Amino acid sequence: MEWYLPAADDFHVHLRKDARTPIAIRAVRSGGVGRALIMPNTDPPILTVDDVTAYVESLRQLGADFDLLMTIKLRPDTTPDGVLAAHRGPVVAGKLYPQGVTTHSDDGFRDIQGLYPVFEAMQQCDMVLSIHGEQPEVFVLDAERAFLPSLKAIVRNFPRLRIVLEHITTQAAVEAVCTLPDTVAATITDHHLAITLHDVVGSRLQPHHFCMPVAKRPSDQKALLDVIRQGHPRFFSGTDSAPHFRQHKESASGCAGVFSSAFHMPILATLFSQHEMMDQLQPFCCERGAAFYKLAPPQGQIVIQDACCRVPEEMGGVVPFFAGHELPFSVAWVD
Amino acid sequence: MEWYLPAADDFHVHLRKDARTPIAIRAVRSGGVGRALIMPNTDPPILTVDDVTAYVESLRQLGADFDLLMTIKLRPDTTPDGVLAAHRGPVVAGKLYPQGVTTHSDDGFRDIQGLYPVFEAMQQCDMVLSIHGEQPEVFVLDAERAFLPSLKAIVRNFPRLRIVLEHITTQAAVEAVCTLPDTVAATITDHHLAITLHDVVGSRLQPHHFCMPVAKRPSDQKALLDVIRQGHPRFFSGTDSAPHFRQHKESASGCAGVFSSAFHMPILATLFSQHEMMDQLQPFCCERGAAFYKLAPPQGQIVIQDACCRVPEEMGGVVPFFAGHELPFSVAWVD
Repeated sequence: MEWYLPAADDFHVHLRKDARTPIAIRAVRSGGVGRALIMPNTDPPILTVDDVTAYVESLRQLGADFDLLMTIKLRPDTTPDGVLAAHRGPVVAGKLYPQGVTTHSDDGFRDIQGLYPVFEAMQQCDMVLSIHGEQPEVFVLDAERAFLPSLKAIVRNFPRLRIVLEHITTQAAVEAVCTLPDTVAATITDHHLAITLHDVVGSRLQPHHFCMPVAKRPSDQKALLDVIRQGHPRFFSGTDSAPHFRQHKESASGCAGVFSSAFHMPILATLFSQHEMMDQLQPFCCERGAAFYKLAPPQGQIVIQDACCRVPEEMGGVVPFFAGHELPFSVAWVD
Repeated sequence: MEWYLPAADDFHVHLRKDARTPIAIRAVRSGGVGRALIMPNTDPPILTVDDVTAYVESLRQLGADFDLLMTIKLRPDTTPDGVLAAHRGPVVAGKLYPQGVTTHSDDGFRDIQGLYPVFEAMQQCDMVLSIHGEQPEVFVLDAERAFLPSLKAIVRNFPRLRIVLEHITTQAAVEAVCTLPDTVAATITDHHLAITLHDVVGSRLQPHHFCMPVAKRPSDQKALLDVIRQGHPRFFSGTDSAPHFRQHKESASGCAGVFSSAFHMPILATLFSQHEMMDQLQPFCCERGAAFYKLAPPQGQIVIQDACCRVPEEMGGVVPFFAGHELPFSVAWVD
């Protein structure tokens, strides 16, 4: 069987700014994605419109063959004027990280209200606020839930600001987004649909399943699958695909991140088929995110085929999600 | 300051049966322990009185300079006669593993009632039943709680059988043991008093904090500390100290186990001092386990001093608990 779809959108991708960047770039189109929102927590970070321009240039030189949607990192030193300049850049979203909760977030926020003037500018120019929604210094399983009151406060104070709660992992986050107004959406990763915490710290430790927010309970995973199955318009695909070299994952202090983008659409087709919701594949991957971001549908067309593909054990030193596994679906581009 | 104590008992130690054994043996006495209950899930396992005799011999040849309390592994093929022979061995406990929940447990139990004739023999000869209390195929955070009904059923059916629920990690297990009769006790490890799941899968992955059962919530950790602070007679020290070479921990599929025994008493003194329960150090480490196991107090004397000691980064290729940290207490043997 074959399913013809528009090129997929990935509304959360890490391309980094180092030796991993070519690997990450190659993976995007391979996975069936024609347009991707690029995260700004590189080292050094993407903070200004000039950073964005230089970053886009370097990504193009390294062969980025898909549409780039760019973001800046919001920090305590971000200014409203900086936001307005970035918006003209054009930058489609500003990304907010809590301090210390994930890769390159030591410069993240502690006092979220200190950023309210920045949110005001974002609301004014209609730039999306993208949030890693985990509360700093809260026990890892409770950090996402503990952030929800801050999210609700932002929504109350900025009723026209569009907000994406990124890579949600809990039933609590699903319920919060459902009850919040249409200005609030959420991305869901491939891996959080596929694994639970048991696949990270079951009888063996699985560093290549370790990410932030960490995968949670089966009931949380079910809530993520259910809200997609129900066709809710404000939950869409963002892989949070993040390449880390094997030695930085299999380490005494391992990096957080799952590298899923090279097999993104075959993985999602596999999961959506297993959970009998193939009818949601196109809306989840190609329509809802674009609608929320007020973008035209993505360019190009892909075809999902029920022909097996084998995920390699390693891609340029990075271990991909489902490494060594055979997936029952593959993806190809339609000329 | 100095605290003079009897030599400590460790009622849960892995010495293995390979290149790690000399490292594990050296650690026991260094940590202030004069007598240790040795786990039987070696490769190959310790199943019979002959296995025990040979294992003790090999441990002595490798320099084991402490009292060895021996166990056998209970498997679906263990017989009541085998138990009675082991008891004469002398073997002080039979260890039960659920299938697939930890290191070398693929031959563990699925049908616990199939072992009831073995439990009957153990009750008859007064051999202790030692249990890794996690239910197979249950989500990792719920597996210990899910085993408690099986524990209660064993207690109901064998009212005189002494049972130790090993390395408990949850408030639920603490409460269950408290409400069960005096025939049921529990061991608590050093690491479960020191860390929570946040120290395993916080913003970085910490494979040297990964063990089974995995560390749980702060409220669970508090329940473990509280029941010790309250001086409950049926909770005592068992480190579950388990050496794994660094490369088997920092791996794509990492081994479960924390190597704590080389600094056992300095670690516990540090934790007990932090939590203002130094008065419980001697009962927890030197008295309660011996009383439950009906053993004379351990031989020898140690002294805990408030003099710093530094835990090395590595010991013979194994990364110890608190590697690279300075502990505010040290331990020495009194001649």
